Amino acid sequence: MERHFDEELNELNKDILRMGALAEEAIHRSIDALQKRDSQMAKSLIADDVKIDELELAIDERCIDLIARHQPMAKDLRFITVGMKLNAELERIADIAVDIAQRSLELIDKPVLKPLIDIPKLAATAQKMVRMAIDSFVTGDVELAKKVMIGDSEADALRNNIQDELVKDYIAKDSSTSPRAVQLLLIARFLERICDHATNIAEDVIYMVEAKVVKHHPEKL
Amino acid sequence: MERHFDEELNELNKDILRMGALAEEAIHRSIDALQKRDSQMAKSLIADDVKIDELELAIDERCIDLIARHQPMAKDLRFITVGMKLNAELERIADIAVDIAQRSLELIDKPVLKPLIDIPKLAATAQKMVRMAIDSFVTGDVELAKKVMIGDSEADALRNNIQDELVKDYIAKDSSTSPRAVQLLLIARFLERICDHATNIAEDVIYMVEAKVVKHHPEKL
Repeated sequence: MERHFDEELNELNKDILRMGALAEEAIHRSIDALQKRDSQMAKSLIADDVKIDELELAIDERCIDLIARHQPMAKDLRFITVGMKLNAELERIADIAVDIAQRSLELIDKPVLKPLIDIPKLAATAQKMVRMAIDSFVTGDVELAKKVMIGDSEADALRNNIQDELVKDYIAKDSSTSPRAVQLLLIARFLERICDHATNIAEDVIYMVEAKVVKHHPEKL
Repeated sequence: MERHFDEELNELNKDILRMGALAEEAIHRSIDALQKRDSQMAKSLIADDVKIDELELAIDERCIDLIARHQPMAKDLRFITVGMKLNAELERIADIAVDIAQRSLELIDKPVLKPLIDIPKLAATAQKMVRMAIDSFVTGDVELAKKVMIGDSEADALRNNIQDELVKDYIAKDSSTSPRAVQLLLIARFLERICDHATNIAEDVIYMVEAKVVKHHPEKL
């Protein structure tokens, strides 16, 4: 017996919310492990990534199957294709959390360089942007999606400050600490990439709701 | 008058090939600018990215429109949805070439650190992987797609060597050169991300042709 199309869309929505929650949690855990210098936490995050990979594949299959069986038109078709894109973005966000955990493992057994500059702040921004982006998809809230896009410039500025400080105060000053400073610099860049993925999601949501392309055209916001 | 579906798929194929050629050219130009220390070349690459962005949007629209008007089943539907994914991967590859050009601009007006270690070799690997990935999509050649996936471990190893050398010989040794070494390290990581995108394409091609998921399951190769 075939379920109703709306019910299936609803299931898709729930899956994407679950994927979003997992991605968000992964960001949080990656930075938590770094701050607490907890290598076990970093390792379990890396191990758990397989669950996110599996959910990604299941969502992708669900989308293709929905299109093939129901041949949805305009609005629903855009919802499903945007859902597929979100799914890929979220899986990559989780992958980046794994990258951060791997960098953190390199740092955990070495002396603390100094409190992590603005990295926890950038991580909080990244997490918030991901949450807002998912919410904007689920509720179709374009204003919220626009806020994500604005948040991205703040994240860029924050990352630039972190990078400048690391280069100026450590990398260009003291060779004994610079390999550790490089790890922190990479972590800051990973976090910025997460913000970029959240921005991609927001752009796709605006496209889905308004059928207006803001991707590559921030002036249209 | 509506054109024949096969003809439209053929047009889509051509657009994706064009997108692939532009992405590949962008990688080449980014490293060429770095090697020749040609800031004009780097700047023109950055300016040209808008053309790739426009083509990405056009391809995306074409895919959605094809699905909506022709309601393709199984094989064709997978071809189109994979086409959408490739399109996104290629646009990001071009974006990364822009990132490389921006890092290169930082380096061009400073003294040469040393010949660029294995960065040109990694760039050549990245370019080759992108070309092979596109070819595997167009021809549906699964064996070629698998070669791309194998190439990715070689690229990882190459990047690790570059990173180790930069950290050991420069960053941990001489603070006066380490900011430049950090730029090179970032460029190596950008190139590795391009290889990752090529691998994503190859995984999608295998999925399209064999309806077999190798994503997250390299043991199934």
